[in-house]
Parts: sequence; C-alpha cells; structure tokens
Amino acid sequence: MARIVQKFGGTSVADIDRIRSVAKRIKCYADAGNEVVVVVSAMAGVTNQLIGWTSEISKLHVAPEYDVVVASGEQVTSGLLSIALHDLGVDARSWLGWQIPFRTDGVHGTARISQIETTEIEQRLKQGHVAVIPGFQGVGPNNRVTTLGRGGSDTSAVALAAALCADRCDIYTDVDGVYTTDPRIVAKARKIERITYEEMLEMASQGAKVLQTRAVALAMRHGVRLQVLSSFSDAPGTLVVKEDEIVEQQIVSGIAYSPDEAKITLRRVKDRPGVAGAIFGSLADAAINVDMIVQNVTEDGETTDLTFTVSRVDLDRTTSVLDDLRGDLGFSDFLADPTVAKVSVVGVGMRSQPGVAKTMFQTLADRGINIQVISTSEIKVSVLIASDYTELAVRALHTAYGLDSQTAGMT
Amino acid sequence: MARIVQKFGGTSVADIDRIRSVAKRIKCYADAGNEVVVVVSAMAGVTNQLIGWTSEISKLHVAPEYDVVVASGEQVTSGLLSIALHDLGVDARSWLGWQIPFRTDGVHGTARISQIETTEIEQRLKQGHVAVIPGFQGVGPNNRVTTLGRGGSDTSAVALAAALCADRCDIYTDVDGVYTTDPRIVAKARKIERITYEEMLEMASQGAKVLQTRAVALAMRHGVRLQVLSSFSDAPGTLVVKEDEIVEQQIVSGIAYSPDEAKITLRRVKDRPGVAGAIFGSLADAAINVDMIVQNVTEDGETTDLTFTVSRVDLDRTTSVLDDLRGDLGFSDFLADPTVAKVSVVGVGMRSQPGVAKTMFQTLADRGINIQVISTSEIKVSVLIASDYTELAVRALHTAYGLDSQTAGMT
Repeated sequence: MARIVQKFGGTSVADIDRIRSVAKRIKCYADAGNEVVVVVSAMAGVTNQLIGWTSEISKLHVAPEYDVVVASGEQVTSGLLSIALHDLGVDARSWLGWQIPFRTDGVHGTARISQIETTEIEQRLKQGHVAVIPGFQGVGPNNRVTTLGRGGSDTSAVALAAALCADRCDIYTDVDGVYTTDPRIVAKARKIERITYEEMLEMASQGAKVLQTRAVALAMRHGVRLQVLSSFSDAPGTLVVKEDEIVEQQIVSGIAYSPDEAKITLRRVKDRPGVAGAIFGSLADAAINVDMIVQNVTEDGETTDLTFTVSRVDLDRTTSVLDDLRGDLGFSDFLADPTVAKVSVVGVGMRSQPGVAKTMFQTLADRGINIQVISTSEIKVSVLIASDYTELAVRALHTAYGLDSQTAGMT
Repeated sequence: MARIVQKFGGTSVADIDRIRSVAKRIKCYADAGNEVVVVVSAMAGVTNQLIGWTSEISKLHVAPEYDVVVASGEQVTSGLLSIALHDLGVDARSWLGWQIPFRTDGVHGTARISQIETTEIEQRLKQGHVAVIPGFQGVGPNNRVTTLGRGGSDTSAVALAAALCADRCDIYTDVDGVYTTDPRIVAKARKIERITYEEMLEMASQGAKVLQTRAVALAMRHGVRLQVLSSFSDAPGTLVVKEDEIVEQQIVSGIAYSPDEAKITLRRVKDRPGVAGAIFGSLADAAINVDMIVQNVTEDGETTDLTFTVSRVDLDRTTSVLDDLRGDLGFSDFLADPTVAKVSVVGVGMRSQPGVAKTMFQTLADRGINIQVISTSEIKVSVLIASDYTELAVRALHTAYGLDSQTAGMT
C-alpha cells in the first residue's frame, strides 16, 4: 500500500471517453489499497479557448480576472472525473483550490505556492476516498483565485505530493517517459528507465518538454519520487529519483536541444566595471531571460565583445531594450542572429569522467558543424550552432555517446 | 443616483461581442453616478454543454460534482465581463459565490439562498467600483459549491438586490418586456408597462417564461422593484411593482397559456376520507407537481371521479405511481390525456370586477371550444382545453378583453 499522487495532463483528459479511461486506471490503484490523490489539467484545448476569449475581449491583461476565467478549465475536469469515479463505485470528491485551501503568494498568472492545508484530504484518504484536485490553481492572501502559470498542474501535483508525504508522484502524459533525445528526430532514441533530478532539470530546461522545470526543481527540493508515464499505454515510464537510487550511471544520459534561440553580439562595449550589470539588469527588468553569456577581449584592450542568447520570441523586445541603452553604455553596434540552436549533452556521470566535452567538439567538427558559443555546468555541456545543423548534431551526438537503441528504430 | 442590480442572461452575454456591448451599457449607468452590481449567466450554450458532459460521463447524478462543473460557466462570464469593463476604464471586479460568500442551504442543484454577506461589496460600491457576480451559484454550509437550479441567476440577482437594498433590479433578456400574451401567437400582443408581482407570478407560472417564478416571489417578499428589458435594444421594459404603484389598472392584464399539460382522471375512487391525501401524497413524494384538481360525485354516491393535471413530462412517472396505488386505493381505472393545454386570464383588476369568468366562458363557447376543467384564484381564471385549440383560444380571449394593440401587429 502506498500513497500516490497521480497527475493527468490535458491530452489524458481530452474528452469524456479519455476521462472515463483515466477513472478506470485510478480505480485499479485505489482497489489495490493505495491512497490516491488525483490532480487534473483542463481538457485539451479548453485552456487555449479560455485564454483566447480573454485576449479577444481586451488587449489589457487584467490578471486577477484572467485567473478567474482560466482556472475554470481544471474545475470542470475535476468535477467530471469525480462523477466518472462514482460511476465505477469509487468514493471520490473534488476539492477546488480555495476549498483545500491551496495557498499561493497571490501573484496572478505566475503564483508561487506558499502552503497547502492537507488535514481534511488526509482524513478522507484514510477512509478510502479518492481526492480529485484541479491543478494550476490556488488562492492568494486576499482570497482571490490565482493560477500557477502554464504547465502549473505538474507543479501542483508535486507540491501536493510533498505536502502529503506521498510515496510517489506519477505524471501521466501523452508520451511514455523521458527519452535519451527527441524520438521525432532520432529514431533510435531510447526510453530512460531512471534519471536523476539534476539531469531531468537539464533535459527539461534544455528543451525536453515532458516535465515542467519548476515541478522537477520542487520534487528535487522535497525528495518527491517522480514517475513520467503515458495514460495511453501500460508501459512502464521513467522514474526521476536521487542519484544514489541509480545503480549503473551512464556518463551521458541524454541529448537535449532547443531550436528557438537567438544570439546577440554587442560590439566594442566599453570594458569597465558595471557595464555588464547595466545591460543584463535592463534585460531582467524587461523580464527577458538571458541564457548563455560569453565575453571576449578585443585587440585594443579597451573594449570588449559581449555575446549572449535569449529565446527567439524575446528577440524583438531585446533589441528594443538595447537600442535604448546604446547611448548610455557606448557600444558601437550589435548583431542579432535568430538562426541559432542550442544542443546539450547531459549526464551526472560526466562529473567523474573527463573527455565528455572533447567527444562533443570532435563529433561536431567531424560533421563540419561550427561551434559559436560554449557553456558548461557540472552535468552538461551546451553549444550554440547554426540552427540548420540541429538534427544532424543531435543524431551524431546520440550515436557518439552510445545512446542508440540496439533493438528498435528505423534506419 | 441609485443602486441598481443588473442581471444579464445567457443570450445577452452569448459571445465576446455581446459581452463587450453589455459592458458599454453598464459603463453608462456607472458613469451616471449609479452604484452598479452586475449578475451574469453563463454564455448561451455553455451550460447545456457542461450539463451534456455530466450526463455523457455517467447515468449517475452526482449532485455535488454536477454543481462544480456547471457553476464554471457563470464564473467564466464574470471574469470576461470584468475584463471588458476594465477595457472601458471602469473599475470592476468579480466575486465568485464562495468569495462573497453567497450562502445556501447546501441542497445541490436546487439550493435555496440562506444569507448573503454584502459588507465588502458595499465598500467597493461606495468607492465607485462595479461588482460582477456569477449568478446561479453559492456555497453550502460545508463550503461546497451549490447551484440554485435552472434559471437561478434571476433569483441570485433579486436576492442580491434585496440584501443590498437596491433601488431596482433590472433583468436583461432577449425580449424587451412582458407582453399581454405570447407575441409569437398573437401578433397584436402589447408590451405591458407596469404589472404587479401577483400578476407576474401568475403570468410566469402560467407559461410566460420571461422571468423565473421563484425570482418574482422573492422580489415580492422583499419589495424589490423589478424591470424586465432587452439588452439588444434601448426600448423601455416592463416594471414589476406593488399594486399601489399602478395608477390605472386593467381588469385583465394578460393571457397566459401552458401547452405542455396532461390530464389524469381516476374512475370510481372510493369516496372516503384520506383517499385524496394518499394519492397526492404519493405523487408529491415522487416530486410530481399536481396543478388543477377537480372532484365529481358519481351517481352511486359511494365513489367519485377525480381529475387532475400534471406537466406532460411527468406523465409517465405519474401513471407508474398510480399503477402502484391502484390496489390499495381501489379505483377502477384511470385515463391519461396528454393532449390538453391550460389557458388563463390574469389581472388584479378582476378582484373588484365581476363577470370576468363569464366573458371567458362565453368567448370560448362562441368558438366551439369545450372547457374540461376550471380553476380560479383571486386574480386569475384558468381553463383546461384540448391542446389543438390553444392558439385560437388565446387570440380570442386577447381580443375579448380589449388587449389588442391598436397600432402594431399583422392582420
């Protein structure tokens, strides 16, 4: 017997039939004597429709009312799933965010969770009831509805699992686990059985969009065992766990890529203290997330070239911030290149194993792929390349690190 | 300056454009210095879709979860309308049922309102803010979402108007007022400028579906001045007020009809005390609403024929209850006739004016329409006739009581 939080994403509850089949899956777990808490997303498409209405009605973003509108999607699923569970003879009830209460800091649209009251839910679990909870929503200090931001249902599930000291948090989605890389571009990609939180974080933030980065970070902080699996099959999924739960660690666990990058180079920036702070401070104030940063000294020794990357969607806003700064900071000009991609190799094993970066650079060089920027962390090496070479690079690295599946795959 | 509650029904907020136009109307009232509280229904069609999902997912009616699902419709409209108001520069915010709180007795699906907390809303109104409130929903004693039943948004609006001591409660709908009869069958029907609560109740319960009966009764009890008007035009509507506010009272204010009736006749019921109680008690236990009742003595003096009417939708359930009772109560058999309609003339003026019923019977007789059952109250006379004659009867009575419009209408 275990206490399990199960989270079902939008495609898993896309329509009435899917919700019924999710109910059957939950019943199996409950019948086996487990205590089950279910977190649901809105039915696929519903959130987009609700968001569409809010932006159709006004160009203003009235954040508290936006939250009132979009939070309704998960509310509907939680009621419908509870009905479907009753239909199977399972004692279930929904708790909306304000009923739990699921408290947040009150920042509409991107609220952070502050506290979850679990007394009543735990009593019900002990009586054998199933608790059904809409993800993505909570209440702020002023008792208004707040949402956690896109994909926040993963975060809701992990936070509940932590608050309830659950044995596991299962994240059901439309893929059956985390792969060594994107199977759409590498047919020989393999499902990973176990992966560490740190690796998962790098994979998630590097573009493997199976799990929300925020949810993984929260799981790591609270030691919540995560499982990613498909609600469309009975195949085992991928477990996200602590490093010591993984017996035989690969050196490289996966290859991630992020195709939607843009590179900015500031030319002849005055090389004096405070310049970088001013530039990146202004970008941060504009809520633009800067990723890789490289600085080179130029020949004259008095100015420097500064290169960094942002998400491609932020490029226009970035150039407009830089235009405003040009006078103050006295850089001669800047170049923006939206045709770049980031490719990363990720693995906790590389801590103890030198030569990982070398293999990467050699493999790319052998294919004639030029590396524009390099950045590294303890467990990953990322390079920026021309985006045309993305698939080629990912496939070559997947083979070079011995990740290709021996059994499946097309040739 | 006045305090006004404005309620907008589903067709008035059917889509984004309609919600925007409702916002403009509200802004006019707010700009004129009025304190405005708005009650909204779900966007037309949304409630039906939500109800459809609940019945598609299970034949069970899990009332608390049904309420969670369907209450979301009004929630969405309240958020969207608040955004539209902000877009016009109007300070508005939504209060969901649980935020007010709008307390009910907790009976899911047909909750009755027990108490509405208005302190915070009144503070906001005094600051010039507009309060937007989803109709139809409240919270029960156990803090779960409860809905007031179909059309409950009218009731929400009237209850709020009473709690806030509002000067008026405007019910916006897709018709521009209450008519002397259904304009679809009598082209010469006239809009009524003022009507008493009592008449409106008879008109509403007799089949003029402009206003919920329950809302009218609540308005009468609390002396809330109601106005029925269209959100699609600027024409003045119909005021529902106390009798003393109507200077020149018509003898007959309107002709109502209800086409969906069924007549049951029990033959040779034992004529002894307790029989009627047993029959109508059993029907009441089955939640079947009995309307007209007539009892005749038969020749033998020991048995009686008992005739009554029910809604046609309840006919099958009624006959099944009667089948079960037949042995116990010893009636010989019963006849069910689903092809009857009720036609009523309504007017507070008939209290002081004899001869109203005579005119009715004579008018119907002149058209060869047979009266099957008669029932009367202080302010109405109703007859049951074969449903084929409904339109003919309504038109003839409309003319006979001098209600035909002199100006408009087709011939």
